[in-house]
Amino acid sequence: MTQLTRRTLLGGSAAALSLGFPALGHAAAPAAGKQAPGFYRYKVGDIEVTVVSDGVNRFKVPDELVSNAKPADVKAALAAAFMSTEMFENTYTPVVLNTAGKLVLIDTGTGEAGFNGSKGMNGQFMNNLAAAGMNAGMIDTVIISHYHGDHVNGLLKTDNTPAFPNAEILVPAAEHRFWMDDGEMSRAPKGRMEGLFKNNRRVFSGDVIKRVKTYDSGKEVVPGITAVSTPGHSIGHHSHMISSAGKTVFVQGDVTNVPFLFARNPGWHPAFDQIPAQAEETRRKTYDMLATDKLMVQGFHYPFPSVAYVEKSGTGYRETMVPWNPTI
Amino acid sequence: MTQLTRRTLLGGSAAALSLGFPALGHAAAPAAGKQAPGFYRYKVGDIEVTVVSDGVNRFKVPDELVSNAKPADVKAALAAAFMSTEMFENTYTPVVLNTAGKLVLIDTGTGEAGFNGSKGMNGQFMNNLAAAGMNAGMIDTVIISHYHGDHVNGLLKTDNTPAFPNAEILVPAAEHRFWMDDGEMSRAPKGRMEGLFKNNRRVFSGDVIKRVKTYDSGKEVVPGITAVSTPGHSIGHHSHMISSAGKTVFVQGDVTNVPFLFARNPGWHPAFDQIPAQAEETRRKTYDMLATDKLMVQGFHYPFPSVAYVEKSGTGYRETMVPWNPTI
Repeated sequence: MTQLTRRTLLGGSAAALSLGFPALGHAAAPAAGKQAPGFYRYKVGDIEVTVVSDGVNRFKVPDELVSNAKPADVKAALAAAFMSTEMFENTYTPVVLNTAGKLVLIDTGTGEAGFNGSKGMNGQFMNNLAAAGMNAGMIDTVIISHYHGDHVNGLLKTDNTPAFPNAEILVPAAEHRFWMDDGEMSRAPKGRMEGLFKNNRRVFSGDVIKRVKTYDSGKEVVPGITAVSTPGHSIGHHSHMISSAGKTVFVQGDVTNVPFLFARNPGWHPAFDQIPAQAEETRRKTYDMLATDKLMVQGFHYPFPSVAYVEKSGTGYRETMVPWNPTI
Repeated sequence: MTQLTRRTLLGGSAAALSLGFPALGHAAAPAAGKQAPGFYRYKVGDIEVTVVSDGVNRFKVPDELVSNAKPADVKAALAAAFMSTEMFENTYTPVVLNTAGKLVLIDTGTGEAGFNGSKGMNGQFMNNLAAAGMNAGMIDTVIISHYHGDHVNGLLKTDNTPAFPNAEILVPAAEHRFWMDDGEMSRAPKGRMEGLFKNNRRVFSGDVIKRVKTYDSGKEVVPGITAVSTPGHSIGHHSHMISSAGKTVFVQGDVTNVPFLFARNPGWHPAFDQIPAQAEETRRKTYDMLATDKLMVQGFHYPFPSVAYVEKSGTGYRETMVPWNPTI
């Protein structure tokens, strides 16, 4: 702190000012070394949206990232988007909506522990929620799009108590039925699917499961928020149309993963999709709607703050990130 | 604050939790109504860059925004970029660099008063600098790209004292010579040019002018920061190449105004350019370099945080905004 004090003193000294240039020997300014808080606000009619980053996950680009494309083609697409061809970067972006005075969270992020031992890079939702002036106790409703860890793990604290102590938890009926079905679990392939079942049984238990209510497609689950069935990424995956006073935004969940790969190449099947052909059909149908209607999309895996428009481009779609608005 | 207290109490109550859902009559959450602070950090080798937003200026799209394009074509380009065709949005984005412990500011924003009576929308540099953990007294050097109000007005506080009390002020020699020349001022056309002369004589006087040092193109004005002549937008306009440990970013100043109009249409002459043909030549040469070298660009009028790559596209260039990095 010494240098800041010296600087402050110099700043207040008329004698020093008259020299015209900084005194020699000014102490060096320390690097800040810390990013700005990851939240962003905008309005959809009367609804206030706060985008709250859970952070980023970085891992070596897996050869099997896209099951029906050559790794070299995937790397070429990453390079064309000015992204690293070595390390895959995936952001996690829950949103909080203030609708009629209720605070509604859509998807939770990876929880306090984060993913892949990368605490500090992700698992940042609660820190950024606090930076946005909110806390977990203020959340009235959590809406879940689907049962993957980056969307549901944040329902639990590390001590296995509910992370949102005052919230009801609204989940897609078809999704909940599948993952809670013992027969489906017994038939799950070893590896990823088995792991997802185990994780979902861990998360949806105890005090969390007591707060769960299921919802179906087409229902206004909360005033201004309508569930839209967008299956394929998972069996009961849902998106959410936010509408107020003639304005709309489509909170797509994981209809695509990162747009610079999967909106641009809607026929590519990411390893994360449970039912690839259905996911592709949903992706094409959804993106056709987004482009035709010039409908703003909020994408969980879009670069923060994850708000974009899309247009038809070549054999797919191209996103234009909505410019950061310094006001709201 | 009453409702927050009630929420907190509910959160701590095991009895309330066992009900499974929030108690009815929960007080409504107030809208936050405030955007996140406008700063963003990244590294260029050993140099830490803090992008600090001065905010946004909004005004009715002027028919004369582009002197050599039809207003309808300009509106079509705005619509193609998913921007309003009625209100033009221009962001102002100074940057602070920590290079070898010296804090260097490139361009100042519009000053405390802001532009066009829009205080609150712009004139936000000092607020965002404080949010980033810095203050005006810590700035060792201010580098000016050119003498337009959104780049120099922040040198002065509203009481006409220097806004950066410990900073030397480095300005392009050709730019300074022009605006300080009484003959040039006497020949200036009425209107915009006359206004710029008056404004520059106001800003570059008193305690500010005492701190001014001029620089020439090709010089490393501060360790890691080299001035690059990019004339046309103004007679002595300069950009700045930031280099450290093999990494580079090109701080372009106003080689283009908003990229979705003027990078995509480098032949368009914005009303802001002093010498349109020379500005176009500079623009084409610079953007050819940026695209060929895949050189990251920091653009004063790019959407915050104003960092992008550009590629050739059609008859011009298309920008890809660099994804927000939750870490640095």
